[in-house]
Amino acid sequence: MRILVIGASGTIGSEIVKTFGPDHEIIQAGRNGKDVQVDISSVESIKNMYDQVGKVDAVVNAAGGAKFAKLTELTPEINEVGIQSKQKGQVNLVLLGMDYVNDNGSFTLTTGIMMDDPIKEGAGIAMANGAVKYFVKAAAIEMPRGIRINSVSPTIMKESWEALGSYFQGFDPAPASKAALLYKKSVLGALTGKNLEMY
Amino acid sequence: MRILVIGASGTIGSEIVKTFGPDHEIIQAGRNGKDVQVDISSVESIKNMYDQVGKVDAVVNAAGGAKFAKLTELTPEINEVGIQSKQKGQVNLVLLGMDYVNDNGSFTLTTGIMMDDPIKEGAGIAMANGAVKYFVKAAAIEMPRGIRINSVSPTIMKESWEALGSYFQGFDPAPASKAALLYKKSVLGALTGKNLEMY
Ligand SMILES: NC(=O)c1ccc[n+]([C@@H]2O[C@H](COP(=O)([O-])OP(=O)(O)OC[C@H]3O[C@@H](n4cnc5c(N)ncnc54)[C@H](OP(=O)(O)O)[C@@H]3O)[C@@H](O)[C@H]2O)c1
Ligand SMILES: NC(=O)c1ccc[n+]([C@@H]2O[C@H](COP(=O)([O-])OP(=O)(O)OC[C@H]3O[C@@H](n4cnc5c(N)ncnc54)[C@H](OP(=O)(O)O)[C@@H]3O)[C@@H](O)[C@H]2O)c1
Repeated sequence: MRILVIGASGTIGSEIVKTFGPDHEIIQAGRNGKDVQVDISSVESIKNMYDQVGKVDAVVNAAGGAKFAKLTELTPEINEVGIQSKQKGQVNLVLLGMDYVNDNGSFTLTTGIMMDDPIKEGAGIAMANGAVKYFVKAAAIEMPRGIRINSVSPTIMKESWEALGSYFQGFDPAPASKAALLYKKSVLGALTGKNLEMY
Repeated sequence: MRILVIGASGTIGSEIVKTFGPDHEIIQAGRNGKDVQVDISSVESIKNMYDQVGKVDAVVNAAGGAKFAKLTELTPEINEVGIQSKQKGQVNLVLLGMDYVNDNGSFTLTTGIMMDDPIKEGAGIAMANGAVKYFVKAAAIEMPRGIRINSVSPTIMKESWEALGSYFQGFDPAPASKAALLYKKSVLGALTGKNLEMY
């Protein structure tokens, strides 16, 4: 398969690239992407990426940011970061990428445990995750040409624990290599419309 | 109680106003609001509304639009309508309204059945609903001063059936007066962090 991985250099993305192994052609994308550069928060940049990459069998996204902020300090402006990147970045990868995905291909996006198991300072990120989860669920019933769509909802990663663990009190971190398996299940399996929860 | 109802002239909003009855002081808001004018898609307008209204015990929102569109015709621009209005409009009512809600007061927002029971042309609206649902769930654990927050997820209304019924094949419409009860449950009850599903 020809698989476009956006966020391929990241904690989760690099394990996604590994898990597919040498049987697939992986195109690695990101702002400083190895094969192609894209900023998913820009519609123009997404269009340029697809123009360069051409047809693929799967689009996998493990990129997209959002800001932690205390609810009482969360402003519309801070909240906008996650809307632009994690939410619209991912949704627009689908809206603008549909014609570049081969028949029976797939999209796999990323949400996260914070939406189902809320933590302090996480309301904006949970919002963006929820938007993606429900976009995926509804889009699945309308996908053309047998194209499937899922999201993966990772728990907190072992590799991110030092930087983020203080937000995730009482959580049990897991290795990114394990999260990568859910992306593989989405791409090489037959599920659609699901948020594959790693918890 | 002093209750601010945004979208008070609408199909659902007008029944919300009725259901609270004369025991409460209801402030009716909307773009052409009886008591105060607000466009929830504008941060400035929301700020002006709260400045005019002052302290309340409850903020209830039944306003906010989003566009039906076939998935293959859904552009980032069409999708933006729901993000600005239904999603950010509602979330910003909370972020900007926190200081105007009395201790142990509440926010009640609106989602909708389309997110849980997907229909054709509904992916953008489901996305906005999902964002609101998960914002509510996460924000609830961080609300200051005993303030609660819920959303109500109405099914399709009998009153909207003529205009929208063709989108909702096989759905069973219910009267808006019944939806209004869930807003009453949210405001006068003790639940928080819930999406009160009318289905
Ligand atoms: N790590 C966790 O514990 C965890 C848990 C649950 C969910 N998640 C979610 O999983 C996703 C990936 O997390 P991660 O920890 O692997 O992130 P990460 O290590 O920070 O990596 C992010 C990757 O995405 C790229 N990227 C960032 N912003 C981009 C943009 N605007 N456009 C294009 N590419 C962009 C980065 O490369 P460039 O810098 O070159 O762009 C990098 O390859 C995020 O949505 C995160 O919220 C993570
Ligand atoms: N009707 C249904 O069957 C149904 C089912 C499920 C969910 N819902 C959801 O419930 C909510 C209300 O639906 P509805 O059918 O009652 O709507 P509606 O009849 O169209 O009424 C909308 C109300 O909101 C006000 N409004 C609209 N845009 C606004 C804005 N930008 N800022 C401030 N006020 C605004 C309108 O008054 P002005 O024109 O004066 O602004 C009106 O009072 C929507 O979020 C809808 O998606 C409805």
